Amino acid sequence: MTKKESGFSVNPWEVSGKIDYDKLVKEFGVQLIDDKMITLIKNLTKKELSPMLRRRIFFAHRDLKPILDEYKKGNKFFLYTGCGPSGPIHLGHLGTWVFTKWLQDAFDVELWFQFTDDEKFLFKDKSYEEIQEWTYQNMLDVIALGFDPKKTHFLVDTKHANLLYPEAIKVAKKITFSTVKGAFGFDDSRNIGEIFYTSMQAAPVIVPCVLKKKKIPCLIPLAIDQDPHFRVARDVYPKLGYPKPAIIHGMFLPPLTGNEGKMSSSNANVAILTTDTEEEVKKKINKYAFSGGRDTLEEHRKLGGNPDVDVCFQYLKFLFEPDDKKLEQIYRDYKSGKMLSGELKSYTIEKINSFLKEHQKKREEAKKLVETFLYKG
Amino acid sequence: MTKKESGFSVNPWEVSGKIDYDKLVKEFGVQLIDDKMITLIKNLTKKELSPMLRRRIFFAHRDLKPILDEYKKGNKFFLYTGCGPSGPIHLGHLGTWVFTKWLQDAFDVELWFQFTDDEKFLFKDKSYEEIQEWTYQNMLDVIALGFDPKKTHFLVDTKHANLLYPEAIKVAKKITFSTVKGAFGFDDSRNIGEIFYTSMQAAPVIVPCVLKKKKIPCLIPLAIDQDPHFRVARDVYPKLGYPKPAIIHGMFLPPLTGNEGKMSSSNANVAILTTDTEEEVKKKINKYAFSGGRDTLEEHRKLGGNPDVDVCFQYLKFLFEPDDKKLEQIYRDYKSGKMLSGELKSYTIEKINSFLKEHQKKREEAKKLVETFLYKG
Repeated sequence: MTKKESGFSVNPWEVSGKIDYDKLVKEFGVQLIDDKMITLIKNLTKKELSPMLRRRIFFAHRDLKPILDEYKKGNKFFLYTGCGPSGPIHLGHLGTWVFTKWLQDAFDVELWFQFTDDEKFLFKDKSYEEIQEWTYQNMLDVIALGFDPKKTHFLVDTKHANLLYPEAIKVAKKITFSTVKGAFGFDDSRNIGEIFYTSMQAAPVIVPCVLKKKKIPCLIPLAIDQDPHFRVARDVYPKLGYPKPAIIHGMFLPPLTGNEGKMSSSNANVAILTTDTEEEVKKKINKYAFSGGRDTLEEHRKLGGNPDVDVCFQYLKFLFEPDDKKLEQIYRDYKSGKMLSGELKSYTIEKINSFLKEHQKKREEAKKLVETFLYKG
Repeated sequence: MTKKESGFSVNPWEVSGKIDYDKLVKEFGVQLIDDKMITLIKNLTKKELSPMLRRRIFFAHRDLKPILDEYKKGNKFFLYTGCGPSGPIHLGHLGTWVFTKWLQDAFDVELWFQFTDDEKFLFKDKSYEEIQEWTYQNMLDVIALGFDPKKTHFLVDTKHANLLYPEAIKVAKKITFSTVKGAFGFDDSRNIGEIFYTSMQAAPVIVPCVLKKKKIPCLIPLAIDQDPHFRVARDVYPKLGYPKPAIIHGMFLPPLTGNEGKMSSSNANVAILTTDTEEEVKKKINKYAFSGGRDTLEEHRKLGGNPDVDVCFQYLKFLFEPDDKKLEQIYRDYKSGKMLSGELKSYTIEKINSFLKEHQKKREEAKKLVETFLYKG
């Protein structure tokens, strides 16, 4: 489906327009997470269900059932997710990782975390050195989220190429340029590193199996724009003797400007960075956060606001208000006109700043932990 | 130029037809090695000139002059050559390596030797494991040729990906699929590893510079079918801040069947393997070696043979008769009819077997040296 036809575009290198997730589910051929699946997960984990599952922010999947059935039998999966290091981390990055941490804790499993420095170097007009610096900076944010260092292994594509490249070429041998063209819309003017890259992103599904000399099932939490990589690779794994990975797909945190596209660090005005000060957060939310409120106080009190398009409400729903009752109350109060836009903004600013204060402290402490997280093998 | 137009084809994955080297020089845009260049090399080295240079088996080059001028000033180059490990080593492989050893000794320089196991895995219908076994087997042949272990470093693409991949992506970022299509005749049905591969072959020009943190000129001795890789990559190096490598091109040792294509191990009847027994060599030469002799003894004595198409004579010229006077005498005697085909074959068999006896002994000893040659860094 082209953007022209659907009004939006979702692929690893572009997320734009107003995303219709129902259409996307059909287009990508993924399954919605239903109540039965939620119950299955609840029964398998001791921990309280992640708000992101309760609220269906992680809303779709591929092959999740068989991996959970295996887990029930005592056959643990490992988690694999990643980060494309080309700029500062913003709130939009955190959703997948916060959810991944929940999965790690709830299922007590290993996590392989890939930093795709090669991808960002190949696709962006940035120098190798700049990408290396962002790789380091982004690691600090990931570590700050509290992953278990004993069960979390960082793979950096250029630093762990000895592990990744041999598996990547096995995947690559079974993917033609025609396939990649179809999946990503590439043409002949693409550089040959971009064309090869999807096989590097496919490799971490195999690497832990090779290292531990056994076939371990893999669960990949990702934002749904990354799905095309695995759509290309997933048929290849069985040909190489490995199980297809399961995937669980998340929605995009909207940018400050409203419910189109996703938060991105290419425009600092539409993103809240993890390194922003309290004042910056306050200013960005107050100045840029798209509001579902009415034009005047009178109108708002009378007609009520629209929380479904209000960016602050979305941030609370995605990440910053884990209490369902509190969130529902805000929804009702805002919709009825009892809660004003300014109040919703203040509440959200406070929540974000409280999170960032702690995050920034842990981010500093993370500097001592980078070596611990980097896989040594 | 297509094979249809020229009657022959020379690229990294196909050498066929009767090769017209003059046409090839024009098509590839390389320079012939002239007497002036030979004199320059003579003056720079203390060692007797390699027969392969005297006889212009290494016959063409790119940018050889500047690298020799730098050498004269005390700025040493390093050598880079390689081996695509997909089968047993035959006499056709040896030419480039024997000449490379001469270069290493004559100029007293380091050699980086790449085993392109990724290439052979990606391009051949062979398993990863089989390619790994050939990589090891081929290393034994390379070591047996007597390279200086203190100055020779083996790089295996999948084992040294940590060194090669970061440089390969820098090259890859500057090469489009259009370029690769043009250079190698690829279409969209090629696998994405094949498309990327040329950047892995380009990387060893950069790796020693990165490791030693200085720009070291590079000289690449190769059989001319490998030239297209560097034709694609050579314009990229200056963009990355490295000098263009110099290249010196060798001709192909003919297969037993005559002066078309090159010796290849895909057909054991047209190749003499380094592991062949004395009997096998004798049988292969007597049974298959294309002869420039006449149909009957009488005719041969009367009209003489044709050493220029005689495969045995070519083998002597390429590798097994370093004595120019002796070679000329054989040429004259064979042409005049004084020397018979049977005599030429016997002489060649003896020469080859004498070489292989020594080679096979050294090949056994090489098993203890593999670890020494593999680059540790």
